[in-house]
Amino acid sequence: MHKGFALWFTGMSGAGKSTLSQRIYDRLKAQGARVELLDGDEVREHLSKGLGFSREDRDTNVRRIGFVAQLLARNGVIAITAAISPYREARGEVRARIENFVEVFMDAPVSVLAERDVKGLYKKALAGEIAHFTGVSDPYEAPVDPDVRCDTASEPIAESEAKVWAKLEELGLIE
Amino acid sequence: MHKGFALWFTGMSGAGKSTLSQRIYDRLKAQGARVELLDGDEVREHLSKGLGFSREDRDTNVRRIGFVAQLLARNGVIAITAAISPYREARGEVRARIENFVEVFMDAPVSVLAERDVKGLYKKALAGEIAHFTGVSDPYEAPVDPDVRCDTASEPIAESEAKVWAKLEELGLIE
Repeated sequence: MHKGFALWFTGMSGAGKSTLSQRIYDRLKAQGARVELLDGDEVREHLSKGLGFSREDRDTNVRRIGFVAQLLARNGVIAITAAISPYREARGEVRARIENFVEVFMDAPVSVLAERDVKGLYKKALAGEIAHFTGVSDPYEAPVDPDVRCDTASEPIAESEAKVWAKLEELGLIE
Repeated sequence: MHKGFALWFTGMSGAGKSTLSQRIYDRLKAQGARVELLDGDEVREHLSKGLGFSREDRDTNVRRIGFVAQLLARNGVIAITAAISPYREARGEVRARIENFVEVFMDAPVSVLAERDVKGLYKKALAGEIAHFTGVSDPYEAPVDPDVRCDTASEPIAESEAKVWAKLEELGLIE
């Protein structure tokens, strides 16, 4: 048994949003939960094709994800989102609209992300080849008071997962 | 008790999609159903701001509504949609993606809709003042084989409502 809620991952590219959100999704799904994972790329395809990476377009993207998460959450479904969502104000707006909202900050310094550089994007961004790259040529406004902060530079993924899970239990959102 | 499904209204402006969908929504809600109403205008605001009325943009709008309806329906929620959705192919695509899909065709000839002209739009469209107005300056492709057809020119709204309700029961989607 669980409540409807939004589990909102935020963080820069490569910080582990997709990986951790997928683990949480799989675990909830295995327990028979009603749960959807709205990954950043999937959402760009299905809800936000045509939007770019200006602040306005990024905020529109975040609001759309928020709208869908709200519809799901208020009907008892768990909505896990994993888009960068770089601006504090837009995240705050979404939080205000959703009754049960849990923000998870996937925190890692750019230096570490550039070192990992799974998709080879940081190298290009640092060379000035990608405009509007969050954390390099575009802002990332870290959450001031997230519900969970995962220090992905030093913390094993299993530990991050355990922290998120414990928070959901503590808030009475899952049993 | 009910299943998750999409109840998809289609029809021209003024044919009664909003009115009937709202009645069905209210009735389901009163019974404690998990149900959302995705009205055309609301969706344009929250999911499709910036899209116009070209065929491509209309189809994108329909696909987005379909995506959200699919997420809701597969989690046991009833998604009622009430956008014009003028093109058969896009409606067919959405139908193919959603397990329980019920199409309701709100049918009325343009002459009757122009007579009613609740929003004063037909007068303008017939005077050539609105480009891309469905049924006048833009196509409306009527469903060939809808699950329910409501003849809104001759049928009282209560009768249309009863037909939709009976179909949902017949399909085992509501009790």
